[in-house]
Amino acid sequence: MKIRLLSQHDIRRTLTMEQAIELMKDAFVALTQGTIQVPVRTNITNVSGTMLYKPALMPSSSIFGLKAVSVFPGNADHKLPVTTGVMLINDSETGLPRALMDAQYLTALRTGAASGLATRLLANPETKVAALFGTGGQAACQLQAMLAVRSLQQVYFFSRKLANAEAFCHEQAELADSCKLVPASSRDVLSECGLITAATNSKTPLFADEEIATGVHINGIGSFRPEMAEVPSDTVCRAEVFVDHREAALHEAGDIVAPMKSGRLPSDFTPAELGEVLLGQRPGRTSEEQTTFFKSVGNAVQDIVCAAEILSIAERESLGQIVDI
Amino acid sequence: MKIRLLSQHDIRRTLTMEQAIELMKDAFVALTQGTIQVPVRTNITNVSGTMLYKPALMPSSSIFGLKAVSVFPGNADHKLPVTTGVMLINDSETGLPRALMDAQYLTALRTGAASGLATRLLANPETKVAALFGTGGQAACQLQAMLAVRSLQQVYFFSRKLANAEAFCHEQAELADSCKLVPASSRDVLSECGLITAATNSKTPLFADEEIATGVHINGIGSFRPEMAEVPSDTVCRAEVFVDHREAALHEAGDIVAPMKSGRLPSDFTPAELGEVLLGQRPGRTSEEQTTFFKSVGNAVQDIVCAAEILSIAERESLGQIVDI
Repeated sequence: MKIRLLSQHDIRRTLTMEQAIELMKDAFVALTQGTIQVPVRTNITNVSGTMLYKPALMPSSSIFGLKAVSVFPGNADHKLPVTTGVMLINDSETGLPRALMDAQYLTALRTGAASGLATRLLANPETKVAALFGTGGQAACQLQAMLAVRSLQQVYFFSRKLANAEAFCHEQAELADSCKLVPASSRDVLSECGLITAATNSKTPLFADEEIATGVHINGIGSFRPEMAEVPSDTVCRAEVFVDHREAALHEAGDIVAPMKSGRLPSDFTPAELGEVLLGQRPGRTSEEQTTFFKSVGNAVQDIVCAAEILSIAERESLGQIVDI
Repeated sequence: MKIRLLSQHDIRRTLTMEQAIELMKDAFVALTQGTIQVPVRTNITNVSGTMLYKPALMPSSSIFGLKAVSVFPGNADHKLPVTTGVMLINDSETGLPRALMDAQYLTALRTGAASGLATRLLANPETKVAALFGTGGQAACQLQAMLAVRSLQQVYFFSRKLANAEAFCHEQAELADSCKLVPASSRDVLSECGLITAATNSKTPLFADEEIATGVHINGIGSFRPEMAEVPSDTVCRAEVFVDHREAALHEAGDIVAPMKSGRLPSDFTPAELGEVLLGQRPGRTSEEQTTFFKSVGNAVQDIVCAAEILSIAERESLGQIVDI
């Protein structure tokens, strides 16, 4: 039995952000249409951490995929990654194992691509200035996604420590091409930004409603648990809200769960899914002045569509290692 | 990130059957004591087959393990394996991925080892002649297990086609050492056998109750679904029945489910678990004349204890391939 191994390095040689954004259309339409099998994920927890096993099958792709993610908070004390992930791929026609790939970059890529698609669909087309909160593992792909869909001249970076934002801007400068990357020391600059992406583990809002510009589009990819928060409820309640998957967002996303719990959003709150916008079932942005908010908690279908294409490219171009198992 | 890959060939160089049988003690005690986390397995089915994902954590071992098994019946038409399996191992202290190993041989090994342990505990010590039904993927390890725990002089092999039994005896002759392997053309020889192992996909009993010897011990590892059957109900009802895991056996094992459904076994039928015998909570064989029946449907704890030891030996002896992922 042979299996293809794809490292982060190999995966970076396959899908571009532009391609990943295109694939997110398939993913979000499949999510809305329910044409994907995503069983409830399985968690096993011990004293040190949690393993999450997330299997999925998308009939239109050629693979079964299982993402195995570890979350071990104490690793940080030993300079080991708190989160790791690998994805096991089996062929959907024969069941044979086909690949094992790193899932950490895959996750960052598909999460960035989701924001990229939402930004393409919802942000004002003339947006030139953006802001990114968070300089962790998701930030680079979030930046790439913003750059892929809007002609940005300047992006401000917010981190809890200014030094982190400075280091990140320095690291990413080359990839950003002619766009200027600026570590932000004050939230005053938010009034210039037509696009804000939040990619943090924050439990309190990252800015105040009055600090953001008219007509801004916000992507929120943190706040994937009810107790987390990135965007102020004042903003969420006056914005047009879009989500990746309604059922998940209404249960897991703190930015939405909190104002629903407090009664500021109605109990029958029904934000549009991005798939509904793609299918023309719900409108996207309807005016230049509107505030739009895309809230994503992430879904296995995003992994599957990307993994299928990554594997297809890797097979065509003989990338990765083929090993006996 | 680095991960160790262990092929079937590598695994064969680690655990012996004797070692695997010893490990089954830990496995069955853990099952009885409930000191293992085995979430419900996840199945995903499409038009071609089913993927089964079985995660488990045994606190006393150092690993999380996920076994991903494919069952694609149509593969037989294309000379591809109907069933394949791999096991993904993560470290229980850090969550980091540690290994991916072939799980097909692992499954056969741990299934054989379970029969070996049951035979050691339950078969008459002086047993010299045995029978094995089935010459499929499980047969070699079942034979090894019988040979490991009893000084057998002769083993009869039953297959639906005599030619298969002949081929199997030929293949295994060298490993069987001084024990004679005999393809069986008639069930008359069962009256000589103090030990019978059934490893088939049969849906009807493989022999009649009156064909077997007084004091025989039977291992049944087929009949893992309610509609399957290997051992006649007459035998099951008069035998002392032992199981790997009561809850699973009473729901899944056709050999037990059928006589319970027909009322021949009481609705509160409570066969002993092998773990209870090991812990001295229930007796094993109580007389030479007794018929004992060990019914196993298999459990993730058996995989985990073997995988942990396989990995430990492989790390110590630098077996397998270490690759970047």
